[in-house]
Amino acid sequence: MNIPRTSYPRVVIIGGGFAGISLAKKLSKQEVQVVLLDKHNYHTFQPLLYQVSTGGLEPDSIAYPIRKILKNFTNFHFRLAHVETIDTETSEVITDIGVLKFDYLVLASGSKTNYFGNTEIEQYSMAMKTIPQSLNLRSLILENFEEALLTSDLNERNALMNFVIVGAGPTGVELAGALAEIKKGILPKDYPDLDTRSVQINLIQSGDRILKEMSEKASEKAEDFLEKLGVNVWKNVRVTNYDGKTVTTNSDLTFETATFIWAAGVKGATIKGLDGNEFVTKGNRILVNEFNQVKGFKHIFAIGDVACMENDEFPKGLPMMAQPAIQQGHQLGDNILRLLENKPMKSFVYNDKGAMATIGRNKAVVDLKHYKFQGVFAWYVWMFVHLFFLIGFRNRVVVFINWVYNYIRFDREARLIIRPFKKKLKRA
Amino acid sequence: MNIPRTSYPRVVIIGGGFAGISLAKKLSKQEVQVVLLDKHNYHTFQPLLYQVSTGGLEPDSIAYPIRKILKNFTNFHFRLAHVETIDTETSEVITDIGVLKFDYLVLASGSKTNYFGNTEIEQYSMAMKTIPQSLNLRSLILENFEEALLTSDLNERNALMNFVIVGAGPTGVELAGALAEIKKGILPKDYPDLDTRSVQINLIQSGDRILKEMSEKASEKAEDFLEKLGVNVWKNVRVTNYDGKTVTTNSDLTFETATFIWAAGVKGATIKGLDGNEFVTKGNRILVNEFNQVKGFKHIFAIGDVACMENDEFPKGLPMMAQPAIQQGHQLGDNILRLLENKPMKSFVYNDKGAMATIGRNKAVVDLKHYKFQGVFAWYVWMFVHLFFLIGFRNRVVVFINWVYNYIRFDREARLIIRPFKKKLKRA
Repeated sequence: MNIPRTSYPRVVIIGGGFAGISLAKKLSKQEVQVVLLDKHNYHTFQPLLYQVSTGGLEPDSIAYPIRKILKNFTNFHFRLAHVETIDTETSEVITDIGVLKFDYLVLASGSKTNYFGNTEIEQYSMAMKTIPQSLNLRSLILENFEEALLTSDLNERNALMNFVIVGAGPTGVELAGALAEIKKGILPKDYPDLDTRSVQINLIQSGDRILKEMSEKASEKAEDFLEKLGVNVWKNVRVTNYDGKTVTTNSDLTFETATFIWAAGVKGATIKGLDGNEFVTKGNRILVNEFNQVKGFKHIFAIGDVACMENDEFPKGLPMMAQPAIQQGHQLGDNILRLLENKPMKSFVYNDKGAMATIGRNKAVVDLKHYKFQGVFAWYVWMFVHLFFLIGFRNRVVVFINWVYNYIRFDREARLIIRPFKKKLKRA
Repeated sequence: MNIPRTSYPRVVIIGGGFAGISLAKKLSKQEVQVVLLDKHNYHTFQPLLYQVSTGGLEPDSIAYPIRKILKNFTNFHFRLAHVETIDTETSEVITDIGVLKFDYLVLASGSKTNYFGNTEIEQYSMAMKTIPQSLNLRSLILENFEEALLTSDLNERNALMNFVIVGAGPTGVELAGALAEIKKGILPKDYPDLDTRSVQINLIQSGDRILKEMSEKASEKAEDFLEKLGVNVWKNVRVTNYDGKTVTTNSDLTFETATFIWAAGVKGATIKGLDGNEFVTKGNRILVNEFNQVKGFKHIFAIGDVACMENDEFPKGLPMMAQPAIQQGHQLGDNILRLLENKPMKSFVYNDKGAMATIGRNKAVVDLKHYKFQGVFAWYVWMFVHLFFLIGFRNRVVVFINWVYNYIRFDREARLIIRPFKKKLKRA
């Protein structure tokens, strides 16, 4: 990779998510050369992907060009690359665009969907971790409704109008809420030929409560909101398989569906060379110390979702959310500068700002450290916080306008099949 | 196709572009059953596709769900379908989702890119007639710049930064202008590692002036604007081939480029069954009379780009633009209602509202019937007219905000490679 060597030490960051960007910002205008590698040329604001899937937001509004974030930084290089291997012996990363030497390496490669080894689920389910995936889901939902118009087979039609979402974390809950609102506000008008009362939204959770990372009160209230919206919440049900038609579970319960969304788990997106048992712990995350250092290395770090930093409050590692990623990126930037000045690094202390989820119009649950609340005010807080953390003034304005419009009009205009997902419809 | 027969006569409209939508609106709440078929579930505002290609607008902002346009109409059915054949004997359209009987048929299938039989150009060139095509071009442009960073071969790098646009109609001119602004305002900041002064934008026109459908003054001024922006305008040059690397012309002139955009011609998108020599005239358009009737049929019509209606002022047929399409759709709606009441149809009279094109920031050319002007005021008129004709309040607001932002910040934020176009980059 033809990136010139300078007298500055080179920090290579893999991944332009919350963690990687936060670190890169901290290192800007410092005496280091920073190379950021990502397989996309944009940063994705993942918390709003479900709104892209449901036609509420445009994909570009929640993406931001990485080159633009970093354009005023000195000694900064971005490369669109897929990292294949990390060679810890030679301090090199091997990518599809060549080999790059590093002085410091930071893995900020995030997480990916965990299918727990079930290849059928992997093959037939829809995921929602990236913008293309979210657009595929959007297309599939709309294509299924178009197809439902064409069949005279009642079972087939019901399967096309049946949503099964596995996993009741924030992604699953927010998606279920959005679909429920579409069922109520949009489908009857868009599909007068269909009996859209038959549309089913099933949210399946293996544990005994939804939003299990949040407070009990939040779980309870969110479930209440979902049920009022007409979502079927199934608790203590474990999905065992989906063959493209039928969802089977650990009980007698089965579902026939053409839209199966897997939001039941994520795992660290490790990279060859640092994925061995000596590095990786539960959830395929790389174990790091309080400085985000990977075991056995002074100059290799991991931050964000891919890193597992254990502490007393979080013995299984900090949650895989934006906040720990942003904070770790920031702190590591500071620590790398300290290392260069031969100062001791500072331990990372997680400032838990809480968690939140929206269930639909005027409905959200918010857990702050000392204050937990639910309902309309929580919903305003949810919106404000998401607008605040979106990168870019234009994105904020456009998302805000879309939200105001959708709120007033009970609408989601981006219900567009720009790229069809189903290659071949079984058309009658 | 399971669309119930009612006592009302059935009008089948093929195509949800300007013509088809205008007709459908006119027929709403009348005593006819309307079936609109389109292969997309959205209407595309084609005049702004070049802004999607150049990252200035989001794709969803210039698309509008057809079901939403028509949701309050009675006796209305939309089907996502690809029409394969028209059987004029049995009055049926044969589609990929089944067969449909019609009482009245209206072809509003628009136009498609004309490669004039050159299969190499068809294979290697980029077109800009649909949203997916425009997004492909956006991805290709950005991927080529990422790739330019990787090569040390000067010729290859120059080819990756060289744009060749063939055809200097509004599409070619507006794209060239937008690329010139990107060269100036964005590339130097996004690619500090590249010498972006080497970026070349070539606009090639076979005739002796650009924007040849407009006034001489407009052509002159537009060329002047383009040259000030640094675009190389080549007139009287006919491109003979492009093999994926080299553009050859009818002279010694050749270009090495990785980005070759073909905007040199369109032809009517006819459908099997009505594509014979007895129907089709120059430009593959269907010859229609003053009522938009296809020769030999009382109940089959063609409107918009696919129809060729000749008159004294336009002996080769009305221009393939939005205005004739909208007006013909409207008039035909009226005429179909007259037919049903056994009244005589009214002849179509084209109300020529003129033409316009923008070349870049503060630069546009406008030809009205009695008034032609160029420059800043023309640019405001261009923007106002485009906002006005965009369908949907939300789209108008979002496009407006993007334009204001882009204007103030000299920026285009949607420079995102959401779906890569190049399958495999030749990476070093």
